Amino acid sequence: MAKKLINHPDRVIDDMLSGILRMHGGLLKKSDEDPRAIVRTTLDPGTVGVVIGGGSGHEPSFIGYVGEGFADGVAVGNIFASPSPYPILTATKEVDQGAGVLLIYGNYSGDNMNFSMAAELAEMDGHQVRELVVHDDVASAPKGEEHKRRGIAGEVFIYKIAGAKSRTGASLDEVYETTEKANNWTRSMGVALEPCSLPQTGKPNFSIGPDEMEIGMGVHGEPGIRRTKLMSAREVAKELVESICGDFPYEGSDVAVMVNGLGATSLLELYIVYDNVVDELAKLNIRVHKSFVGEYITSQEMAGCSLTIMKLDDELKELIDAPAKTMCFDF
Amino acid sequence: MAKKLINHPDRVIDDMLSGILRMHGGLLKKSDEDPRAIVRTTLDPGTVGVVIGGGSGHEPSFIGYVGEGFADGVAVGNIFASPSPYPILTATKEVDQGAGVLLIYGNYSGDNMNFSMAAELAEMDGHQVRELVVHDDVASAPKGEEHKRRGIAGEVFIYKIAGAKSRTGASLDEVYETTEKANNWTRSMGVALEPCSLPQTGKPNFSIGPDEMEIGMGVHGEPGIRRTKLMSAREVAKELVESICGDFPYEGSDVAVMVNGLGATSLLELYIVYDNVVDELAKLNIRVHKSFVGEYITSQEMAGCSLTIMKLDDELKELIDAPAKTMCFDF
Repeated sequence: MAKKLINHPDRVIDDMLSGILRMHGGLLKKSDEDPRAIVRTTLDPGTVGVVIGGGSGHEPSFIGYVGEGFADGVAVGNIFASPSPYPILTATKEVDQGAGVLLIYGNYSGDNMNFSMAAELAEMDGHQVRELVVHDDVASAPKGEEHKRRGIAGEVFIYKIAGAKSRTGASLDEVYETTEKANNWTRSMGVALEPCSLPQTGKPNFSIGPDEMEIGMGVHGEPGIRRTKLMSAREVAKELVESICGDFPYEGSDVAVMVNGLGATSLLELYIVYDNVVDELAKLNIRVHKSFVGEYITSQEMAGCSLTIMKLDDELKELIDAPAKTMCFDF
Repeated sequence: MAKKLINHPDRVIDDMLSGILRMHGGLLKKSDEDPRAIVRTTLDPGTVGVVIGGGSGHEPSFIGYVGEGFADGVAVGNIFASPSPYPILTATKEVDQGAGVLLIYGNYSGDNMNFSMAAELAEMDGHQVRELVVHDDVASAPKGEEHKRRGIAGEVFIYKIAGAKSRTGASLDEVYETTEKANNWTRSMGVALEPCSLPQTGKPNFSIGPDEMEIGMGVHGEPGIRRTKLMSAREVAKELVESICGDFPYEGSDVAVMVNGLGATSLLELYIVYDNVVDELAKLNIRVHKSFVGEYITSQEMAGCSLTIMKLDDELKELIDAPAKTMCFDF
C-alpha cells in the first residue's frame, strides 16, 4: 500500500482543486457551470481559445499549463481517467471569444471519445472548434502507425506552441496549422524504474524487479517495448535519443529538449540524464535551442523519466521562447 | 536497493553540475578556482554578496536559489555532506564587490564548522563577512533552545529575503539585520512517510512501517518527535500548524507559507495539504500573503512534506514579493 497525504480517495481531485484555486485565484477560476472546468480569469480578447485536459494524477499536468501565453481552459478528469464531455464543453464555451477554440488532448481512447463529443456539442451550439490529438510516444506504436501512439510529455510543448500562436492573433486554422506542425515534429520516449499507485487502491499499477527498468513505458503504466537490467544515465540517454532520432530526422536541426521526471526521480538525476542527452544530440549535430528539466507530466510517485524532442524552425523558436505564465511556470 | 538514474555514485555531483551549467550557463558559472563554487555570471554592482550552500541531494537546493534577487553564490557539498571551507571561501571572494558578504547556512555541525572556517579565512584575506545560521525546524529542539534547531525548508525564505534586501543597496549590517529578523520569524516542521536512499549505498536511510509516518523528521532522516499511524492530510496540516504556531505568536499576522514536497510526494497531495493548512491558519486569524507549493528542499526520493511559516511586516512583504529569477524559479 502506497502512503498518500490525502483526506479521502474520492475527494482528491476536489480537494486539490480547492488548494490550487485558493492559491492561484488571480490566474484561474472554476466555471460556475461545471466544477471540473477551470479557465483563466482574464482572456486575451479576440484570440483563439485553447482548451486542454485529461486525467488527473499527472500534476502539474494539465491544469499547470493554463495561463498567459498558454492554454485558456482545462477539463480536469479523475485520476488517470478522461474528463467527461461536459467540463470540456463548458471550458470550450467559456474561452470562446468569437475566434473559435482549439481542443488539444493526448491520444487515449477516453479522451478521444469525450473531447470529440464535446467538440460536436460545441459546434451544435454554434462554436467553431478544431481538435488536435498529441501522439508523441514513439514506444507506443511503430513508425507508419503514428496515429496509434499515446500522448506523453510532448503535450506540454504542443500546448505552449498553441497558446503562443493564439496570442499573436492568428485565426483558428492558423493556430491549428502551426500547432499541428509542432505536433508532427515532436517525439518522446520514457523509462520507468518503479511503479506508482492510485489513491483509490493504494496498489502499485505494475511490478518490476529490484534491478530492472522498463523502456518505453506509458505514463499510466502501459507496457513499454522491453524490460532490461537497470541501465546507467548515459545508457538511458543514448537509448532514448537513438529511438527518438531513429523515428524522425532531427539531424542537423535546432530543437527544444525536455527531460521530464515521472515523480520520484530527483532533479539531481534528471540533470545527469540531461547532460548525457545533450552529448548524444551533439553527435548527431542536433543543436539545443531551449531546454526543460523537471517534473512536467508526472505519474504520481512513479520513478523514471522521459525525453521529448521538438524540431524548431524560426516560427516555432519564437513561439517556444514567447513569454508565458501559469501557476507553476514562467517562460 | 533504490534505483537511481546515475553513471557512478562518486560522480553524481560533478555530472549534475555539468548538466546544470550546460543549461543555465547564462545565469550560473563555475569558479575557475574551485569546481564546487558556483556563482552568478552577472553580479549587481556595489551590493552585498550572499553566499549559501550545504550538502547536495536536496535539489533544487541549494544551487536553485542562486540568481537575480536571490543568492549570488553557492558552495556545493557531496550528498548530505557539508561543502569544505574552500568552495565557500572561493564563492565568498568571487561575489564580494567591496560591500561585504553574508554567508547563510542551515544549522548542522559540518556546515557550522566549514562556513565559520571559510568566514575566518575570508576575513584574514580582507573581506568583510557576516554569518547567519538558519534554525527553523521546531521539531528538532524545544522552545528556549532555538539555537540547537536544524535548518530545513525555511532556508529558502531566508535566502530570498537576503537576496532581495541586498538588491536594495543596503549595507552588510542592514542585510544581516533584516535577514535575521526573517530568520527569527520563520518556523518549519515536516512529516516523512517513506525514507530515501543515498546513491553511494542505495540503502534506505531509515525504516518505517507500511502504515506509519514520522512527525518532525529531518531532511536527512534525523529522528523526529514521534512515530504515528498514517494520518490524513487534514490531520497533518493541523498538527504542523499547531506545532509551528505554538512555538511562535503568528496569530493575527500576515505570513508567507510554504508546503514543500520532500521528493516522492505528488503536487496533488501538496495542494491538498496546502488547502487544509490555510483552513487551520484562518482559525488563528493568520492571513496568507504569499504561498509556495512544490519541491523546494527535497531529500532524494523521500515521501512526505514540510510546512514553513514566516511572519511578514511591511518590509518583509516587499522583499518576499520582489522579482527574482533563478534556474528554477521566477518570483
